[in-house]
Amino acid sequence: MILVKNKRKTILWKIVKEKITELIKREISQIEASLQRLTISQHPFINQVSEYVLFSGGKKIRPLLCVLSAKSLNENIRDHIYETSLLFEYLHVATLLHDDVVDSAEFRRGRKAARNLWGNQATILVGDYLYAKALRLASSLEKAEIMHAITETTLLMSEGEILQLLHLDDTYISEASYEEIIFRKTAALLACSCKVGAILGGGTSSQIDGLANYGLKLGMAFQIIDDLIDYTSTETGKDLGKDFREGKITIPVIFTLDSASEEEKKELISLLKKRDPSQQDFQRSVEIIERNGGFQKSFEKAKNFVSQAVESLETVPESAYKDALLYIANYLLERKK
Amino acid sequence: MILVKNKRKTILWKIVKEKITELIKREISQIEASLQRLTISQHPFINQVSEYVLFSGGKKIRPLLCVLSAKSLNENIRDHIYETSLLFEYLHVATLLHDDVVDSAEFRRGRKAARNLWGNQATILVGDYLYAKALRLASSLEKAEIMHAITETTLLMSEGEILQLLHLDDTYISEASYEEIIFRKTAALLACSCKVGAILGGGTSSQIDGLANYGLKLGMAFQIIDDLIDYTSTETGKDLGKDFREGKITIPVIFTLDSASEEEKKELISLLKKRDPSQQDFQRSVEIIERNGGFQKSFEKAKNFVSQAVESLETVPESAYKDALLYIANYLLERKK
Repeated sequence: MILVKNKRKTILWKIVKEKITELIKREISQIEASLQRLTISQHPFINQVSEYVLFSGGKKIRPLLCVLSAKSLNENIRDHIYETSLLFEYLHVATLLHDDVVDSAEFRRGRKAARNLWGNQATILVGDYLYAKALRLASSLEKAEIMHAITETTLLMSEGEILQLLHLDDTYISEASYEEIIFRKTAALLACSCKVGAILGGGTSSQIDGLANYGLKLGMAFQIIDDLIDYTSTETGKDLGKDFREGKITIPVIFTLDSASEEEKKELISLLKKRDPSQQDFQRSVEIIERNGGFQKSFEKAKNFVSQAVESLETVPESAYKDALLYIANYLLERKK
Repeated sequence: MILVKNKRKTILWKIVKEKITELIKREISQIEASLQRLTISQHPFINQVSEYVLFSGGKKIRPLLCVLSAKSLNENIRDHIYETSLLFEYLHVATLLHDDVVDSAEFRRGRKAARNLWGNQATILVGDYLYAKALRLASSLEKAEIMHAITETTLLMSEGEILQLLHLDDTYISEASYEEIIFRKTAALLACSCKVGAILGGGTSSQIDGLANYGLKLGMAFQIIDDLIDYTSTETGKDLGKDFREGKITIPVIFTLDSASEEEKKELISLLKKRDPSQQDFQRSVEIIERNGGFQKSFEKAKNFVSQAVESLETVPESAYKDALLYIANYLLERKK
């Protein structure tokens, strides 16, 4: 494939890239048009809260993966695919709403969290509603395989949320536990979005497995990069990483605790455990992680998952949609924010 | 049918009644044995919270209705039905957990509410988990009709929860709105339990509809009786009804506000709106409702739903299981607590 195996001349690459990003934009706008069209509920209040979270500028990555997976196997799939793909956005947003209540979050995607506007009660219940709505949409497909994939995934995810809550203050979380957490938190739903797309696209079982695995590895890479830029994207002297502020142990810290001196370990842990850490505390943590190669190792890990994601697409025939999937995987590694 | 159409001699009736209650007990103990056998999760914490609510002495009415409906159509249905029926208990308990968080409940079924032991966060997430578990169980049946019924019901229920939250302080709730609320809150899930049982029992479409309708009307009667005894079951001078304490408008109040004098209306409303009502306030409300026939009318309404439930079973052939369903409907009206 163009993006991976060869390095073509810059000008050719630019044209290809433009075509791919155009295709992605087109698909996203179709997804968003479907979202506008679909009635969430007959009740204005439910719509108001749902729309607040559904139209909050998220990238609709889960529906996009579902659509691209389906189209990579069947370019002429019916337009119904856009509506169907939204079920993954509903599921995602439902978990965000409950997360925000569980974490007492003040903000989400740069805006006030829904719970700050409508209270915890309504937020829990609208979360339940969107979850039910997603399952309703899924069941209308009348495919046992799809229902199976989705219910298996939501079970994994909700179990993961509980494990995460229980491990909240666990400083010595292993790399394996971290992988388990991000698999359940992020990768499982991305895998499911691709899998359901592949099923709807009429894929063979090896194509379905391939696309599901692509989604899984992409999800792992996606979360690692997310956790990485939580440390590296903040403007110096201006802001603290959210994970650091919350004392959450993510992969850059895990790698650092693995190789740092006893002294540095103790210091990093005490910085992470501080109730109200300062900008200096954050900077100092970044230094310790940087010196121990924590960022570099995290990036390598993400890169490794991206390679695995790309390899998983072997069974998928060449097409503009496959190119888009490959592009998304590689683009991940360029994320700075 | 024995219970409804004729009045046999007391001694004969006693024998019949004993047989039916024996059958019901046997089915409940099979359901409970399944519940003991089934692993909720690999994680001790999730099991601990789930078991706390699942084994809290509830009557397992939803699984029971599912099993009886199935067996009324196919006595030799496989034992798998007991496991399957549990999905309705999971769904029910999931809504109770979220309800308790939404209502900041201190107690549930005479014990501390789960949220009082494990906090709101874990309670929300274990609720999500049990919901996912129920859907997982449902999807393993691989029947689109069942998945459709269940997802439709959970959607109705979660929408109902939100509407109830929004109407919380609404004193002038109509009889129709009340019916809509209790349909979503209670009757829809009972209807679904019977419907799924009927589908699994291989019923014809008129049998499936009949049993679903039985569950629906039973659920309506059940909730009305529940709301009625919230006023009438408390020991005089000792306790206040929960609905009264919370200022919740239920059917005895609705009937009273319909027919009371302006003076009585005002008094009843102001009593219901009191922040911290006394035993005297409660007694006074009971008097006003009693004088206006609010209890009697509520009981008649429940009785009417019970008749409809019984009529709905016309398409179901005579059997001990059908007798049990009829018994449950009639027994409802004898509930005192």
